[in-house]
Amino acid sequence: MTRFDQVAPDALFKQLERATPEDSLPATSTLLLAARFNAAGLIPAIAQQHDTKEVLMMAWMNRQALEETLSTHRVCYYSRSREKLWRKGESSGQQQQLISAALDCDGDTVLLQVEQTGPACHTGRRSCFYIAVDETQASINSLPLIDPDELYAKKGGV
Amino acid sequence: MTRFDQVAPDALFKQLERATPEDSLPATSTLLLAARFNAAGLIPAIAQQHDTKEVLMMAWMNRQALEETLSTHRVCYYSRSREKLWRKGESSGQQQQLISAALDCDGDTVLLQVEQTGPACHTGRRSCFYIAVDETQASINSLPLIDPDELYAKKGGV
Repeated sequence: MTRFDQVAPDALFKQLERATPEDSLPATSTLLLAARFNAAGLIPAIAQQHDTKEVLMMAWMNRQALEETLSTHRVCYYSRSREKLWRKGESSGQQQQLISAALDCDGDTVLLQVEQTGPACHTGRRSCFYIAVDETQASINSLPLIDPDELYAKKGGV
Repeated sequence: MTRFDQVAPDALFKQLERATPEDSLPATSTLLLAARFNAAGLIPAIAQQHDTKEVLMMAWMNRQALEETLSTHRVCYYSRSREKLWRKGESSGQQQQLISAALDCDGDTVLLQVEQTGPACHTGRRSCFYIAVDETQASINSLPLIDPDELYAKKGGV
């Protein structure tokens, strides 16, 4: 039992605002019941390479994907286009191993520290964020590490 | 004119997949017309401290907020709760200065490199991602830099 266990789910993240590293927090299962998945049951998940700190991609998870990721340490998203769980790398071989995860202050976004094998992006680039924009001009900021035709010998998907 | 100027907006990001840093890209205004704002007209924006690479927060922008951010270099989000533009730091003083911005491969997420004054989080912490979770346990990973009561002498909001 912790001092947060009697808090209603919709008040839990507010109550945690003044918690400290010394506090015993509710179990992850309790936090995930309070987390704010959107109307489609999804939460955005940002993947960051744990050592270089490069932001690799943003994708979506449903509750099952997040639970599986925390359990197996192999990152699993929910594909909105394919409407099913998407274990990163199942087509391309470019897996993400989970190092650690954190929810944000209002429980509606997840940040994943990962070990990414090769490119995270389906274009073969390390990061999906390769289209730099300023007020007037855009430019490409990186080249593929691998030709995407080599990533997907048989079928699409990352 | 660039070789991408005749591409229909819904095909533009696909066409850019094989572009290189040497290519002349369409103007930012053309890219923003092709960017995939959601049904509510919003796009997720991830803020990363440009030098330490810490991921500070994720919030939402509408087209106007993104255009203003690229124009003024002061980061402006769209507050879904207050239903209006939210110039980061207008209540707390903890502004974000834009260093650079990038769209992802399918044009539905923005990554901002920023210079964050003090805490990004309304709790007074540097980053909003302070609730670490593993398969079973959760813990708080950081303390406030500033008491949130000091951040908001008059009113709420970050």
